[in-house]
Amino acid sequence: MSRNLSYINLRNISITDKLFGHYIKKIGEKILEHQWDILNDTDGADATYCIRNFRIAAGDIRGKREGVVFQDTDLYKWLESVAYSIAGGQAGAFEERAEEVIDLLERAQEEDGYLNTYFQINAPERKWKNLVEGHELYTSGHMMEAAVAYYEATGKTKFLEVAKKNADLICRIFGREEGQIRGYGGHQEVEIGLIKLYRVTGERKYLEQAKYFIDERGQKPNYFAEEMRRNDFPEFFPEFMKYDLEYSQADKPPVEQSEAVGHAVREMYMCSAMADLAEEYDDKPLRDACLRIWNNMVKRRMYITGGIGSSGFRERFTADYDLPNNTNYCETCASIGLMMFGQRMASVMGDAGYYDVVERALYNTVLAGINIEGDRYFYVNPLELVPEFCTEHTYMMHVKAERQKWFSVACCPPNVIRTLSSLGQYIYAKDDESLYIHEYISSSVKEDIGGVSYRVRMESDYLRKGDVSIELDLSGEGKVKLRIPYFSKKTFIKLDGKELDGDVKSGYALIALSSGKHKLDISFENSPRWIAANNNVRADSGRVALVKGPLVYCLEEVDNGDHLSEIYVKADEEIVETDDLSPVGEIPLLSYDGLRLKSKVDKDELYGEVHFDKEKVKLKAVPYSQWNNRGNGEMSVWQKIII
Amino acid sequence: MSRNLSYINLRNISITDKLFGHYIKKIGEKILEHQWDILNDTDGADATYCIRNFRIAAGDIRGKREGVVFQDTDLYKWLESVAYSIAGGQAGAFEERAEEVIDLLERAQEEDGYLNTYFQINAPERKWKNLVEGHELYTSGHMMEAAVAYYEATGKTKFLEVAKKNADLICRIFGREEGQIRGYGGHQEVEIGLIKLYRVTGERKYLEQAKYFIDERGQKPNYFAEEMRRNDFPEFFPEFMKYDLEYSQADKPPVEQSEAVGHAVREMYMCSAMADLAEEYDDKPLRDACLRIWNNMVKRRMYITGGIGSSGFRERFTADYDLPNNTNYCETCASIGLMMFGQRMASVMGDAGYYDVVERALYNTVLAGINIEGDRYFYVNPLELVPEFCTEHTYMMHVKAERQKWFSVACCPPNVIRTLSSLGQYIYAKDDESLYIHEYISSSVKEDIGGVSYRVRMESDYLRKGDVSIELDLSGEGKVKLRIPYFSKKTFIKLDGKELDGDVKSGYALIALSSGKHKLDISFENSPRWIAANNNVRADSGRVALVKGPLVYCLEEVDNGDHLSEIYVKADEEIVETDDLSPVGEIPLLSYDGLRLKSKVDKDELYGEVHFDKEKVKLKAVPYSQWNNRGNGEMSVWQKIII
Repeated sequence: MSRNLSYINLRNISITDKLFGHYIKKIGEKILEHQWDILNDTDGADATYCIRNFRIAAGDIRGKREGVVFQDTDLYKWLESVAYSIAGGQAGAFEERAEEVIDLLERAQEEDGYLNTYFQINAPERKWKNLVEGHELYTSGHMMEAAVAYYEATGKTKFLEVAKKNADLICRIFGREEGQIRGYGGHQEVEIGLIKLYRVTGERKYLEQAKYFIDERGQKPNYFAEEMRRNDFPEFFPEFMKYDLEYSQADKPPVEQSEAVGHAVREMYMCSAMADLAEEYDDKPLRDACLRIWNNMVKRRMYITGGIGSSGFRERFTADYDLPNNTNYCETCASIGLMMFGQRMASVMGDAGYYDVVERALYNTVLAGINIEGDRYFYVNPLELVPEFCTEHTYMMHVKAERQKWFSVACCPPNVIRTLSSLGQYIYAKDDESLYIHEYISSSVKEDIGGVSYRVRMESDYLRKGDVSIELDLSGEGKVKLRIPYFSKKTFIKLDGKELDGDVKSGYALIALSSGKHKLDISFENSPRWIAANNNVRADSGRVALVKGPLVYCLEEVDNGDHLSEIYVKADEEIVETDDLSPVGEIPLLSYDGLRLKSKVDKDELYGEVHFDKEKVKLKAVPYSQWNNRGNGEMSVWQKIII
Repeated sequence: MSRNLSYINLRNISITDKLFGHYIKKIGEKILEHQWDILNDTDGADATYCIRNFRIAAGDIRGKREGVVFQDTDLYKWLESVAYSIAGGQAGAFEERAEEVIDLLERAQEEDGYLNTYFQINAPERKWKNLVEGHELYTSGHMMEAAVAYYEATGKTKFLEVAKKNADLICRIFGREEGQIRGYGGHQEVEIGLIKLYRVTGERKYLEQAKYFIDERGQKPNYFAEEMRRNDFPEFFPEFMKYDLEYSQADKPPVEQSEAVGHAVREMYMCSAMADLAEEYDDKPLRDACLRIWNNMVKRRMYITGGIGSSGFRERFTADYDLPNNTNYCETCASIGLMMFGQRMASVMGDAGYYDVVERALYNTVLAGINIEGDRYFYVNPLELVPEFCTEHTYMMHVKAERQKWFSVACCPPNVIRTLSSLGQYIYAKDDESLYIHEYISSSVKEDIGGVSYRVRMESDYLRKGDVSIELDLSGEGKVKLRIPYFSKKTFIKLDGKELDGDVKSGYALIALSSGKHKLDISFENSPRWIAANNNVRADSGRVALVKGPLVYCLEEVDNGDHLSEIYVKADEEIVETDDLSPVGEIPLLSYDGLRLKSKVDKDELYGEVHFDKEKVKLKAVPYSQWNNRGNGEMSVWQKIII
């Protein structure tokens, strides 16, 4: 069975958007270079040892391998970003450098296909012996994703051959046959890589290996439980030492799972692979498990910003409706994983609604992960912050009051970049007869679908007026499926000046097109409005958040002063779109009236008589994704209501 | 220089109070027996190995030493409780058992005085080599406290000799002389033990050794920094591995410290010793440091319940005004430490005001540490709780929704018991010419002060009506100093039926008495009232708490339903004392009107249109210390106000 939706090669997509185009331009101009310096320890900051580790593994230099056990993945994600950027036309200059690195990888790879600098250099005797923590399969998965991306961008096969050789080794090592290890990776990811490798090479054994990893996970006797007993555990991550099987979604087989649990990124990467496999195998039980986990997550465990992972400790999911705003994790990578999962669910289910969630994650948490200059990153994304409470060595140590240059565990920065540089594949997709438009981000695409050539140019004012204009040129009869976002209560679509009736099925408006040139004019309703949370979300009880289209807004100290906890608004307060625009993307800032309530307890006392002062204030909100771009200070998404 | 205040031997004090008497009776009837079973692994629960470890050390049996590195202290605190309870007349039956255990200690002690089952059995080569984590000096300190208590209760010296022998060893090992270790304990406590040993034996070297430990702490070169570099660190507590010197208040000398930082119990035990030493040595710089730390704590970093330690991670202080209500730690032991520090500050400063804080901790957090049956304990004391959010392996893993039978690190249960069994010393004190009454807890005392015999019987209705009646019988002229609590805006004192003018100095009303019988009738103003927090406490912004006298009240699900986050009250709402009484102590429950605000977002959605329902409700509040005695459920101290 084939897939409902296929991706379009990024070589065929060009992004011109005011908001996203800004970041994509930065990637080619600056970010890839900057990350390259970091990987090479030539940026003057703390050494990452990333490239150096590969040089040691290749025998170019001698030394001890340094950095976290999965440090290699930083390079793989960089290569993946370079590949997407080459395809997108922003990174031609990096191809030569990429080639050199790929040569290095080839030389570092062992005869049998093994490639992992930590185990090769520091602990060859420990290969495949600490699956629960060692991240070997995870690292291989990122190599595969990068190799597939590089092949699709350049048509060159050397990196793909390295990845295949590694994948072949994994297929030999892991399985249910005599002499094979009946294990799977502690941090899911290899499954995604193997599926991509299958799709690009057509070699079915890679798909079957991915299926094996998902099917075998959590079976009894439990591989991780046995391994933990065997090992001198923990080896790598002492802070996670009271490891639970649920943490890596290995307490029971994925097909039996029903809730979003454990480490959020692991969960999302696993579910992405599950959704792919459900589609490839037409596996209803697996698809149902995806649906159960998805529904539990988006209806019980997801922030309004598309952030996931309520626990600041261990980067993980907690319980239904437990969504604290200031101690949360909401790892940037987890929301990227949510985008990946949602993108695949839209294909499995043939439903555009999944993109409502993809969009929520993209426009809020994922974009918040990087500053507008493109040289600082958030790993953790709080919805409420008081800078002076973010203290080291305490329960708040994971929350940073400002974006950081890099991290000792640096999964997020290159993950944001590979996501933004592959954004085209979240905007457009295709099936045998239709072009799908999922996101309204100014761009153009050319693609042959069912023998018909489509040339499309989209001009979007999605975030401001809600208007989108799409010019199309088809070589024959064709179809376009437009996603209608959940927030648009009234959507008007005109084809060549004539209003369509707007029949929407599974979240899509289907537009049949004759051969030749056409113009679609779409108008989405995206006026700003207040949103409340489910009554079970204790943290948001008696609070409202401000949204406009896909954007969640927040208050920042720079606009509204400090002590944002003093602020109250009427639940139906009128919202005004101001002429002030956001730092990037020309998004209007929003203004409204509110109250400040100050306790007058003496400054030298902690507790005292009740006396509150009220003061009327004019408030100004900015898109959450752009907070902390105008200096450090307090920030708050959910605002208390006046009752 | 002698101390301003001296303790009164507990043999001379008898407690009859409805509230505290309940617990003290339980200690003799049940708790000591129950804890004895736990220490002996005969209670059917998880083994503690506590007594067994001493048997192994004494050579009675063979085996590996089990439990946390400071497990010995559980027995010492039990012995200390037994001693106080023997003195108080509740535990005569335990004296024989205590004698047997003391014999065991004597046999387990090594020739040179060393006594610590972990290092004796498991790691003799590591003695005194991991001061920052190893808790050897901490364990010795608890032995000394227990030995002094046992001597004061029974007059028997065997245990005291064991402790002295151990203290003598410590005096030889640690110091600034050639061949001595120039270190100090990672967890302060030995200082308190040494000072008590000095006071009971008169041997000044113990006092000087305590002074050395405080003076040397944090000096450069930093002992802990050097030790951490030498050691394969961490050895015992991997979750604390990114150890910072501030964590154990060793980043600079105590005399230079100004804020309540790091691990809360360590800070309180250190400050208690500092206050004692400031008084013994009339050391103004040390006293000023105590004052600075005290003021920072009570004006910036203390919960309304007298809880301290805002960080659920690492049991520690965080930043000024950072007082989250649900993720906090507020360890029971930390509030016990606060009582100890406050008790000593009242003596150093000659000011009753410190007892306002002692009382806050005692009546709220410390008493909350134990259930009314006396067989379950809280280690962590949240001010707001939703049971289903207290999930394992997450940021909430430290918070338990119900009191626990015991803990693998079991510092709190025996600490509560030694505190309650020595409560008399928080009620009464003396100087050369006066009897001090600090707490209004029904009890009697007989004591000779300045050659005059005082016989006193106090009947207190402090928590209900605020009335206290004290009968006194003096053999000559004398003085009583009554602490006037901060909350009593109008205090009436009658001596033998005649109203006194009530001149209050340093928080005390001084009552001069002639020889013979007298009666004091005191009436404190303790009507229930609403309290607000300092505006900088973001967590309590727009909230009020209900107090009556020293008691903080809270709402519980059993009385008010779940979803307490929905509840709003008027900041000046009238409070009614009901006829319902608290489970113990006959304290009136309080009632008032409020609103429930429910978000009507569809139950299958997380976020949606703003629509709130309002409903009038009648609310009922119980003393915080008695929450979770009528089943599990939500609880909340701070309530949102209607504005």
